[in-house]
Amino acid sequence: MKEKKYTKEERDALRSKLADKQVVVKEKKLPVIVMLEGFGAAGKGSAISSTIRFMDPRFFKVYNMDKITEEEERRPFLYRYAVKMPAQGQFTFFDGGYIDEIVKRSQNKKQMKQRIESMNNFERSMTDNGYLIVKIYLHVDKKTQKNRLKELLEHKNTAWRVTKEDLEQNENFEYYEEAYGKVREQTNTKCCPWHVLESAHLSDVEGEIISIITNAIDARIAADEKNGKDRPLQQNPYTLLPATKLSKVSLQDKTIADDAYQEELKSLQKKLGKLHNKLYRKRIPLIVAYEGWDAAGKGGNIKRVASALDARGYEVLPIASPSPEEKARHFLYRFYTRLPKSGHIAIFDRTWYGRVMVERLEGFCSENDWQRAFHEMNEFEHDLTADGAIVVKFWVHIDKDTQLARFNDRQNTPEKQWKITEEDWRNREKWDQYEVAIDEMIAKTNTDFAPWTILESNDKHYARIKALKTIIAAIEKRLEA
Amino acid sequence: MKEKKYTKEERDALRSKLADKQVVVKEKKLPVIVMLEGFGAAGKGSAISSTIRFMDPRFFKVYNMDKITEEEERRPFLYRYAVKMPAQGQFTFFDGGYIDEIVKRSQNKKQMKQRIESMNNFERSMTDNGYLIVKIYLHVDKKTQKNRLKELLEHKNTAWRVTKEDLEQNENFEYYEEAYGKVREQTNTKCCPWHVLESAHLSDVEGEIISIITNAIDARIAADEKNGKDRPLQQNPYTLLPATKLSKVSLQDKTIADDAYQEELKSLQKKLGKLHNKLYRKRIPLIVAYEGWDAAGKGGNIKRVASALDARGYEVLPIASPSPEEKARHFLYRFYTRLPKSGHIAIFDRTWYGRVMVERLEGFCSENDWQRAFHEMNEFEHDLTADGAIVVKFWVHIDKDTQLARFNDRQNTPEKQWKITEEDWRNREKWDQYEVAIDEMIAKTNTDFAPWTILESNDKHYARIKALKTIIAAIEKRLEA
Repeated sequence: MKEKKYTKEERDALRSKLADKQVVVKEKKLPVIVMLEGFGAAGKGSAISSTIRFMDPRFFKVYNMDKITEEEERRPFLYRYAVKMPAQGQFTFFDGGYIDEIVKRSQNKKQMKQRIESMNNFERSMTDNGYLIVKIYLHVDKKTQKNRLKELLEHKNTAWRVTKEDLEQNENFEYYEEAYGKVREQTNTKCCPWHVLESAHLSDVEGEIISIITNAIDARIAADEKNGKDRPLQQNPYTLLPATKLSKVSLQDKTIADDAYQEELKSLQKKLGKLHNKLYRKRIPLIVAYEGWDAAGKGGNIKRVASALDARGYEVLPIASPSPEEKARHFLYRFYTRLPKSGHIAIFDRTWYGRVMVERLEGFCSENDWQRAFHEMNEFEHDLTADGAIVVKFWVHIDKDTQLARFNDRQNTPEKQWKITEEDWRNREKWDQYEVAIDEMIAKTNTDFAPWTILESNDKHYARIKALKTIIAAIEKRLEA
Repeated sequence: MKEKKYTKEERDALRSKLADKQVVVKEKKLPVIVMLEGFGAAGKGSAISSTIRFMDPRFFKVYNMDKITEEEERRPFLYRYAVKMPAQGQFTFFDGGYIDEIVKRSQNKKQMKQRIESMNNFERSMTDNGYLIVKIYLHVDKKTQKNRLKELLEHKNTAWRVTKEDLEQNENFEYYEEAYGKVREQTNTKCCPWHVLESAHLSDVEGEIISIITNAIDARIAADEKNGKDRPLQQNPYTLLPATKLSKVSLQDKTIADDAYQEELKSLQKKLGKLHNKLYRKRIPLIVAYEGWDAAGKGGNIKRVASALDARGYEVLPIASPSPEEKARHFLYRFYTRLPKSGHIAIFDRTWYGRVMVERLEGFCSENDWQRAFHEMNEFEHDLTADGAIVVKFWVHIDKDTQLARFNDRQNTPEKQWKITEEDWRNREKWDQYEVAIDEMIAKTNTDFAPWTILESNDKHYARIKALKTIIAAIEKRLEA
């Protein structure tokens, strides 16, 4: 903690500097997250107001993170932070953050630990994907907090700002001081360290905060220019299950007779419908991720799963190319925004794995980007399951000849022509490159918490029955746990 | 109510027909909304499940509208319907809808009437903008409802579906029967009539519902092909205030001396900050809409307003061109999704008025589209204010010479070059056409509930002071009301 005092003129000069920095940040397409944490009445709100005073309000947003909404409660821990990430060239300020949430709302030590790990991974992944995260902790001592709360309570215009939680915090000051300190220590990472400021004299703190932000921006831009944007790959800490190469998957013998199909389909759909009911009552979310060759039968497969479900409790999410808003953010952003509520089911028709397939092969991201993505996606899925979700991943598989036959059929049948495009033919030419990418993808992301299942789909009926059985087994396993 | 009985085969045939219709709907880019209304246990849920059984789940969504979330409660009445509108070629099914909401959640008769009017206007505007809305009411008699609720309660797997509200509804059956009937009557419009079905025999009703939907789709496509997509313009029912033509606005005399500016700015910002506090406590939302010539000083003006506000309670929303998701929906969709929560402030940097300026002049929509838009935007703003919001609209005005001087300054100052684009120069060439469009816009949308204020901005300081004063006056007026 520096002891520097700031005059009004110095603070105004700093504010102007930050406003100028906004233009640089826009030019460099740097997205910046500033998190202000601290006890009630530590001065977070006024510090943010002071910081942004000269900034162009079109390019930043401020979120008060104190209260968690119903909708947020029904999503994973990281959701409410992830969906608020800024686009390139923009700022997001969080007034309050996860320390408070982790300390007050974790159900047990295990969950606490899990959330700290999630947040550390998330911040590292965000940084690796081009974000700058600046974390500032405003420290206040017990007496100062008490006096400030008292002062706020004395005036009609400010009394409503003081919550019961604030008062309780001051009463049990020592307990919270220690608990917050521990979380701060454990989230004090190399990429995103905490800056701790003593908030006894707010006007000095305000100057300090702006300095920290502008210095962090300068340092980051300089480092990127010097070292480039590639980041080290992470070691995989998760248990990976053995994976079969696509060329070793036998397809011809995976068939089912017509009457057996009709009978099994009916009984499995009935069973899945009942399990959906249980998931809903137990508030367990289910995520089903579909990937597969063009014309492998994804659509029909999804339809058979979906029609077994209560229509009010699931959503099928077709993933097309990202919108400009999505492209300007972390590649997982558009999946965070689509996560199901607890008790609901989300079926993704194509997924985040596009990063290591189409984006890899078409050069839509750098080599370092897609190489890091295996790890980033494992972390993403680990968080989902650690927060209680079931994750089922399908690769819908056919051989090259079957694809050709189906493409020709689509081309020659007027009602099916909308299903086939030039792009499908172009992708087909890259079959071998895709096969290498898919083998690597399955091998590196076949975790025990979110394993891949290959659906042999030369016989579409066979693949549908297998999909239903796999989902049912995953739900039953979870309900027994 | 027809007496037709449906066999299982007939229903399957109808389901297949609806699935085929999905392809047509996709081709014709027709967005379809199906609303199923009725008492608890009328069979809405199973009717929807039956209807969608053969449909491709990538192109429809089902929403249960029974429960209103916290987030929705803090938005205007239409919000939760509007944000769920389907894209072109897609279906949205509402399980439950506004009749229930209007009967049970209106605070008084006036609000009830207002909401009915809002919904009728909204449905007409949606239809005019290419949507097909099919409204089906499932009627159930008191005894049947009672028996079904009893049956549901007897089984563990279904008992949780019966709510207190359902039981209360059965107890006061006659009251609700009459109230729902009245709302139904008053929303039984030409564009979107109610189809009332007797739901004693669910399997027959299911066949009937699918018939109604496919017939409505056929009829709509046939009508569009025969009559085209132009719709009659509506008469304006709102009070319009007199409007000044831009050419009559005097700019040169609207100046303020430097020291007076600094002093006024400070005191007005302080005042606005305090009023924001009051709005927050009274849960009144404020919408400030900025339009103006390029380089008129919108950005700097917004900045002076924003920096007076509590950063956690406002958002500045820069409106760029719509994303593909937004383009495929009603033109107001992207503004519905950005409406502020109660007590919050949304400052729009460019607005829905793009419809009658850039979209009109660049031919991004049809002539009929932008001509209808004056009325549609008046209705939109009327709903916002009727639901309690304050709406302030600014036209930031400069003359042509001032624009040229500022363009040249931007071009010649390295730090400002990002602010000027080729497009700005192209727009400048169309100044006269824009002036005609803007005069018409202001004249036709200068309603007493959401009037325009012209900010004379040759002297940017003058315009900022006037903006602050206008917003303050609007808030004070509302707080006194």
